Amino acid sequence: MPSISVKGVNMPESPIRKLVPFAEEAKKKGRKVYHLNIGQPDIITPENVMEKIRNIDLKVVEYSHSAGIISYRKKLVEYYKRCNIDIDVNDIIVTTGGSEAIIFAMLVCLNPGDEVIIPEPFYANYNGFANTCGVSVKPIFSTIENGFALPPISEFEKIITPKTKAIMICNPNNPTGYLYSEEELESLKEIVKKYDLFLFSDEVYREFCYDGKKHFSAMNLKGIEDNVVLLDSVSKRYSACGVRIGALISRNKEVIKTAMKFAQARLSPPTFGQIASEEAIDTPESYFKEVLEEYVKRRDLVISSLNKMDGVFCPNPSGAFYAVAKLPIDDSDRFCKWLLEEFEYNNQTVMLAPATGFYSTKGSGKNEVRISYVLNLDALRNSMICLEHALKVYPGRVKG
Amino acid sequence: MPSISVKGVNMPESPIRKLVPFAEEAKKKGRKVYHLNIGQPDIITPENVMEKIRNIDLKVVEYSHSAGIISYRKKLVEYYKRCNIDIDVNDIIVTTGGSEAIIFAMLVCLNPGDEVIIPEPFYANYNGFANTCGVSVKPIFSTIENGFALPPISEFEKIITPKTKAIMICNPNNPTGYLYSEEELESLKEIVKKYDLFLFSDEVYREFCYDGKKHFSAMNLKGIEDNVVLLDSVSKRYSACGVRIGALISRNKEVIKTAMKFAQARLSPPTFGQIASEEAIDTPESYFKEVLEEYVKRRDLVISSLNKMDGVFCPNPSGAFYAVAKLPIDDSDRFCKWLLEEFEYNNQTVMLAPATGFYSTKGSGKNEVRISYVLNLDALRNSMICLEHALKVYPGRVKG
Repeated sequence: MPSISVKGVNMPESPIRKLVPFAEEAKKKGRKVYHLNIGQPDIITPENVMEKIRNIDLKVVEYSHSAGIISYRKKLVEYYKRCNIDIDVNDIIVTTGGSEAIIFAMLVCLNPGDEVIIPEPFYANYNGFANTCGVSVKPIFSTIENGFALPPISEFEKIITPKTKAIMICNPNNPTGYLYSEEELESLKEIVKKYDLFLFSDEVYREFCYDGKKHFSAMNLKGIEDNVVLLDSVSKRYSACGVRIGALISRNKEVIKTAMKFAQARLSPPTFGQIASEEAIDTPESYFKEVLEEYVKRRDLVISSLNKMDGVFCPNPSGAFYAVAKLPIDDSDRFCKWLLEEFEYNNQTVMLAPATGFYSTKGSGKNEVRISYVLNLDALRNSMICLEHALKVYPGRVKG
Repeated sequence: MPSISVKGVNMPESPIRKLVPFAEEAKKKGRKVYHLNIGQPDIITPENVMEKIRNIDLKVVEYSHSAGIISYRKKLVEYYKRCNIDIDVNDIIVTTGGSEAIIFAMLVCLNPGDEVIIPEPFYANYNGFANTCGVSVKPIFSTIENGFALPPISEFEKIITPKTKAIMICNPNNPTGYLYSEEELESLKEIVKKYDLFLFSDEVYREFCYDGKKHFSAMNLKGIEDNVVLLDSVSKRYSACGVRIGALISRNKEVIKTAMKFAQARLSPPTFGQIASEEAIDTPESYFKEVLEEYVKRRDLVISSLNKMDGVFCPNPSGAFYAVAKLPIDDSDRFCKWLLEEFEYNNQTVMLAPATGFYSTKGSGKNEVRISYVLNLDALRNSMICLEHALKVYPGRVKG
């Protein structure tokens, strides 16, 4: 044991990845593990994107502009126009994944010790990024019974303090799949305006809206243009998580100017990823149509299977490719670990993300798990059969 | 003007990039600008690396392991063995550029408010990363007259406080090109041991050592294995700055375990960049031989030209591809801006980095600039002619 002490130990472990060593052990035993724990879709990256990479003709793989390659940023303006979001090339900073966009937003808009309100359950890594930036997350409870709809504005007002500087949402939501309505966003606008807060809107699942529902972007809320910071990523849109390209977008010039200082310090986002992402904007519409149809089938299979299981409840999500389900279990961390360590059904098991990691309120999410429906229908069908059996034999089963 | 206030405003601007808008203006006027301000070499990326990228056969561009693709990490072990650095695959976390490795090291080993001692002048972005992590940089003066050698250990001891948790060096050095000797590192070891500090060793220019001198890695200091954190990057080694791949390496298991939490939160380093970097390790030796010969010629040209100029002094660097020169000027920030805004010689000018940004002691470096000799010999020759003329006509010239 080294005598020298390591700091940074308050950094929370990723609930999505912390079980990875147990999954590796299970695989060593020859077990098939269905990965429903992580948002890594099996959908192929568009062929035009891969073709572009195969035709890269660079002599020197240089740093790009710190805000991103200019031709890519121009193309992004086109892309956002198609999404009905009207922005200028100077409103965009290309980031290394959505992760860096979130970190930049926090570093730019909040001081250490400041507070950001986030409806929970929320994307677990928000906790990690807040920890990195010395920012305090104030959760506000959304309930599975309400399908994880936006909590009433009165609940937000209850926890606003002089240190509250921002509200953060993810829409469509990870982990719940909830799609916020225009009305919900309009009510958020009122509170953002009243208390002059930043509104961080993570819209990386923008394209994944189902049942004919339309996405309404926080960028289109009138009168709070300087308050909104859009956080984006190409990872899910083009099933290209590994390119590590995202964006921080704001019409607030001070936000962009300050974010640029952080962007310049780290020199530039990845060049190959930007080339891939620029090409991705020209991906034919047919690709998205197919992908969306596929996700609807997957969702329908998973949600109906879950709700048929004894003691299980899962609201029907309208977006993204996640669902949070309530299970008849004592402790989701224990259950998910048990699935990998002790359970098998026909030599198969399933890896889920304990919902505890998506709550910042201690003790919440103990009977909930996040399920990513990112595998093909056969794999999902097998996963649901596994899960149903597991719930029957799990020693920590409680009355549902 | 937005009423909402932006934080993060203490973040320093990059001295390397802050003049970019002025360079863009100069180019708009049709002026040729020689970029000696940034470490972006014109050396071609190895052909085998580009060939590898052109042959990528992935269906889905997935997230990699948060610590990096395992085959790449195994290959890195081989690479370090060739450099006489003996490490294990589990001692490595692949990062998004050297920048992320530095941020991880600071987040893991220091608490906000803790102090890191860095000999100055130092790589300017260390300031930015320290600011990001809430860490305080305590500079220790190295002098141009001594060729920027390591200051005496007694100087370090003078500024050590209970909050001092680390010493950080860059070897070979950016911006000075100084190569620390084994003896200097051994003396650093004593102080690291005595006060139980971390030693962050940024060795991204390891391969760039001249005049038959050999690089000695901090990883080979015996008895402080748990204290050393190696910070690395492939950017300069393979002239592949845009791939954004670096590494944090330590034999201290607690450091790696804690750094993994930060690595998991941001999911993974770029996949394409990792594929390129894995291939780069097999780059033929002939590539490096040619590159080194080229840099020696460039250095010799630049340093001899500088020292021939009236009132100019520049020590001869033994490594990297930077030099800090003392010029007969009032203010390097003013001078570098003037070069872009007002000066031209045969419709050409030169962009340099004011050394002020490489010092954390206010007022230092006002008569110094950093010069990156990253352009071809013809461009460097023209740059030196430009600079010589500029110094003759610069209104803020002082007696050298």
